[in-house]
Order: sequence, then C-alpha cells, then structure tokens
Amino acid sequence: MTKHATSAATFRERIGRARAEMASAGVDALLLSVGRDMPYLIGYDAMPLERLTALVVRGDGTCVLVVPRLEAPRVAHHADVFDLVAWGETQDPMTIVVEALAGARTVAVGDQMWARFVLDAQRRLPGVTWSAASAVMAALRAVKDAAEIAALARAGAAADAVAAELLAGEIPLLGRTEAQVSADISARLLERGHDVVNFAIVAAGENAASPHHHPGSRVIRRGDIVLCDFGGTMDGYCSDITRCVHIGEPSADVRDAWDVLRRAQQAAVDAARVGARCEDVDRAARRIIADAGYGDAFIHRTGHGIGMDAHEDPYMVEGNGASLAAGHAFSVEPGIYIAGKWGMRLEDIVVATETGPRRMNDAPRELVVL
Amino acid sequence: MTKHATSAATFRERIGRARAEMASAGVDALLLSVGRDMPYLIGYDAMPLERLTALVVRGDGTCVLVVPRLEAPRVAHHADVFDLVAWGETQDPMTIVVEALAGARTVAVGDQMWARFVLDAQRRLPGVTWSAASAVMAALRAVKDAAEIAALARAGAAADAVAAELLAGEIPLLGRTEAQVSADISARLLERGHDVVNFAIVAAGENAASPHHHPGSRVIRRGDIVLCDFGGTMDGYCSDITRCVHIGEPSADVRDAWDVLRRAQQAAVDAARVGARCEDVDRAARRIIADAGYGDAFIHRTGHGIGMDAHEDPYMVEGNGASLAAGHAFSVEPGIYIAGKWGMRLEDIVVATETGPRRMNDAPRELVVL
Repeated sequence: MTKHATSAATFRERIGRARAEMASAGVDALLLSVGRDMPYLIGYDAMPLERLTALVVRGDGTCVLVVPRLEAPRVAHHADVFDLVAWGETQDPMTIVVEALAGARTVAVGDQMWARFVLDAQRRLPGVTWSAASAVMAALRAVKDAAEIAALARAGAAADAVAAELLAGEIPLLGRTEAQVSADISARLLERGHDVVNFAIVAAGENAASPHHHPGSRVIRRGDIVLCDFGGTMDGYCSDITRCVHIGEPSADVRDAWDVLRRAQQAAVDAARVGARCEDVDRAARRIIADAGYGDAFIHRTGHGIGMDAHEDPYMVEGNGASLAAGHAFSVEPGIYIAGKWGMRLEDIVVATETGPRRMNDAPRELVVL
Repeated sequence: MTKHATSAATFRERIGRARAEMASAGVDALLLSVGRDMPYLIGYDAMPLERLTALVVRGDGTCVLVVPRLEAPRVAHHADVFDLVAWGETQDPMTIVVEALAGARTVAVGDQMWARFVLDAQRRLPGVTWSAASAVMAALRAVKDAAEIAALARAGAAADAVAAELLAGEIPLLGRTEAQVSADISARLLERGHDVVNFAIVAAGENAASPHHHPGSRVIRRGDIVLCDFGGTMDGYCSDITRCVHIGEPSADVRDAWDVLRRAQQAAVDAARVGARCEDVDRAARRIIADAGYGDAFIHRTGHGIGMDAHEDPYMVEGNGASLAAGHAFSVEPGIYIAGKWGMRLEDIVVATETGPRRMNDAPRELVVL
C-alpha cells in the first residue's frame, strides 16, 4: 500500500467522474482488482495474490471494497467514499462480489484483473456483458492534476539523484556484473525514497542492443557502453529514466549515434505540446533517427504514459492519433540498437502543460565517459 | 527473466505432462501469459506490461511463443521446444494468437493473465469455451523435482542468512522506521543472491497485528515486537520466511504467546507428512493455538504452496482435503494477532518427502531480545 495524501473529497470527485464515463459508455458497474484503477478511486492497492480483493463501483450508487480479512487493517477506510466487507479464510469472496453486482447487465473489469477471477465472475453471472475498464478509466487517469504532477516530479527527482551518481562515476561499474550494478541502483532508488523498484535494467556492450535486457552475469569491461533504465514507485507515482555511460572512449560511430539520439529526444520533447497528436511525438524522434540512417535500429515506440502505472495511456506510437492534453505525462525515450554490437536509449518523463512540455528529469544527457 | 538451468529435455517432458493433463481435462489449448506457468514450460517469463506476450500450447502439437519484438532478445529460444513469433510495435499480437488457436473449442487461460487480453481473445473467438489453466497446471507445478527442491533450498538459505543477521542484531532497528528496515532487508536479500524482492514486511508493535502490514513511517521503539516477513525470487524460485525480535524484554503474555506459537509451528511441520491432508497441517497448528486461548487471534490459514510463485498450490487451509505428496513445498506460518497491541508469526518453508518433512529454513526460532 503506497502512501496517498489524496483526500476523501478527491476520491469522491474521481468516482463521480468515473460514473459519468460509465453512463456515457453504457457500463452499469466497474469490477476492479489488482492494477492502479482501485488506488486511483479509493486509495487502496489490492495485493497481487490469490486472495481476491475487489472493488465494485455501480453507476447507481454502490461502492464496496471486498478484501481478505487479514488485509483489512491495511485499508485506510474512508467510510464516506466506500463500504468495506472483509472475508474470512474459509469464505468465498466471489459470492460477495456477485451480490454486489446483482442486476448489472454490463460490467467493466480492471485491465489487469487476474483471468481466474474474471472467468469465475463470468461463470456465475452468465447474462452479463463484460468489457475492459480502461474504456472508462484510462482517459481519466491519463490527465494528471497538480498534486499528481508534483508526485511525478518528486519521483523523477529521486531517480535523477541516482542517475547523477551514475554519471558522476559514483556507482562502480568496471569489473562488476550487470546484475550487481542493477542491485546497487535498486538499493539507491529505495534510499532516495522509492517504495518499490519496478525495474533496473543494466545492459553492457552488445546486451544494450536488447531494449528490455535482463541484467545478468555479463561483466562490464573497458570499451562497453552501459545502458541503465530504472524506475520505481514513490508515494504511488512512478519514475522512469534511462541514461548511458561509456567505459573508456567511445568509437566514432557510437559518439555520432549518441548525438543523433540526443537531437531526436529533444525534438520529441519539443513536439510534446498540448494539441499535438501522440504519433507526432513519435514521428519527431523517428524522423531524425531515420534521416541519420538508423531508422531500422529504432525498434520501439517513442514513449508510454506514466502515473500510478509504469506504463499507461497515452502511448507515443505511430497510429495513435489522439491529441495531447494538459496534464498528460509520458516518457520520451528513443533508442538505437545495433544487434551484436551496442545499443543506446535516452529517456525523460515529460508532462504536457499549457505553457509547453515540462520535463520531470534533469540529469545530464551527455554520453559520459568514465 | 530469471536464470533457469532447466534443460530443453525437462521443458519437453513438462509440456508432455501438461498435454496429458489437457487431454484428461478436455482442454484443446493453453493460452498462457504473465504468471509462472510459462517459465515452467519453456523457461521464459512474460513481462507484466501492456505489450502482449503469450504462449499457445495445443494438445495437437503446436507450441508457439508470441513476444514483442523488442523483448525477443530476452528469450532463450529452445527451437526444439517451442516456435517463436516476434511482433512489431505497430502490429496486433492478438491476431497471431487467434491464428494459433484456430479450431480449438476449449481453451484454458493462465490464472494471472490480464483481463484485457482475456476479454479481447473471447471477443475474437466467440465459439470457444474458456477455463482456468490452473486445472491443468497447478497440480503439475505443485510437485517439485530434485532440482526445484535444490533451488528452493538455495533461496531459503539466502533468506536465512538475512534472518540470521536480523536475529544477531546486525540490522539496526531501534529508532529507524519500518520502511527503512524494510529497505535494508530488501537490499540484503539482493546482496545474498535474490534476483527480485517480492515483499519485506516490517511491522512494529501494534502494527504487527496486521498480517500483511505495509511498512511505513512508524519508528521502532523500546518495548516493540518487530515482525519481519520477507522473501524474493532467486534463480526462478521463491523464498519466504518470518521471524520476530523484541526490542527490550517482552511482557509475560508476549513471551507465553511465542512459546505457544513455536509449539504450534513445530506441530504443523511434524504433521506435514506424505499422505496427510493439507487441512490436517492447518489443524495441527490451530489446535495448539486454540487450546492456549488464542484461537480467535489466528486469523489466517497455516500456509501456502511455494515454488516459482510466492503463493501457489497446495494451500494448508481448513477445507482442503487434498493429500500431501512427496515434493509438495509450502509455508508453515501460524500467527497470533492482538489488535491494537502486538502480533507474531513464525514461518518456514517445508517440503514433504518420503522420509518426512524437510525444512528449507534453519534460522533460529527463538523470540530474540535485542
């Protein structure tokens, strides 16, 4: 359970907006479980375990949290926001959920709810039409209010502090394994105030060509580029930053590619203006990388939304013609990957504001040589 | 992606056993995604993100992994075990999955697969009957082979080392917050070889009465019991241990309750013999705690299975009449919780073997006074 300074009034207001969305989407009830929709609406995170935690939000008024009895003390219960039903170890929680859903004909379930619970609910409520709750919740959550942006900025500053240590050579690299450096970065994220580390990719040399590389036993050597992409959750909101360092002087092609990458990332940040299309942010980075001859080496989208989830709407990807609104928060992280040789990525979190794009990360963007 | 020394031959053998279970359960195909069924069968962990990773295992021969292109380099591809299809950022992966499922009338989906993917598959394959993959996979995975037990023992030893530091007073407690101690324990688990920390509960004084307490800003003071329940994943298998320490001399009631708890835990371990029913393990602990007058204070089951998942079959709970088999691995963790005052729990991982229960944890079980 992450700390949320969010007030009961804010939760009520969010539930009210969710109900308005439900009405226009023709959804009678939300059935939420693991995932961040629940903490967004009531401040409580379901534990991702086999004991069901579920929130039922009905358009007609009910808002009830069904929680394992042994986890009930974890719940900060705003009685003016939701009702609480705790179930004991030998009870069947789905019976309680089914009662709470009685009469609902269309139910939207949280995107990350476990299949076993969805299938069980479907079996017991055969007349219901089921849909994904993101149709109701994603657009609401994508627009961050001032408190949420402040939380993203705090998480970003904490990640920046670790990135600054990396760039200053304060995190030993040479001769250590990727896994050791990953553990070191993870510990530092926690020291800087993160509640959880979500990932700490450390990829050396040829491994950096794998964008989601899992840090392993590869020892960092002279001549390696070292790509570090890390983030966690702090007071409920996520950080996510990528920086690269080079052990010893980089080759001319690595140096040149970094220059291309930096310009591409800056162009995408500059494009992230209110009213721009998400795919235009992607195109701004991709054009520069393609013009430099690395088009085939940029094998992923430019960015993903971020907030309570590490990845959420909106996505900066070709085909997403949705427009950026003030309060949209997302990563801008182009990369260049040469299989078998090296890879590089540069990532900041950016918030679209009425006065232009605002970065949540300030760590230096040079390819530092250590 | 965790390291798996598991051989291709073992994966083929597991897939063969899964197919036999599918045949007897009338399941034409498995559709697996996040969760541990996939690494059990092919050695690969799906990333829990919005980009779909899915494994389709058909009874009639197909075994295909559909993976995001940028994650394809993570896959250790045993070409004699499964086929690999990588999808690009602007492709639709569900189209590939639907093709792989063509003709299947009954599909079992991984228990933890995200609802959004299940609903999407259901929408595109309206004639299919859907069920939970645990009906096929849970019993297979519950029985650990020698290599799996060895992995659990290594993870247990690493957790024991951290527990020993706690009990020796080497982890500073007095004056620190629960959250700080949790971060310290997490860092030590990583140092001892864990790849991921799954949880590190630190609950002081009255907070220890909340079994799944989230460590927070509560400062540890003289007179507190400090309950520490932590575990992670190491080479693909989980650790999970609970120990308590007391800052200063405990009161007589705490001292007495600990004695009850220790005897209850020992009795449950002793009961964990091949052929015993799971609920008998629960009853063995519960009887001693109830006889001592703490029956209402033991508010959860006695244990959960453990392996690749932190919680999996079999569960040591009233109502589970299934029998223990050699190779079943599970926690034995009775607790006593007095709301507003204190709580305590004592937990070891135990494997049922033909020669009797074998503990995976050896850290001292005294209520150490620090």
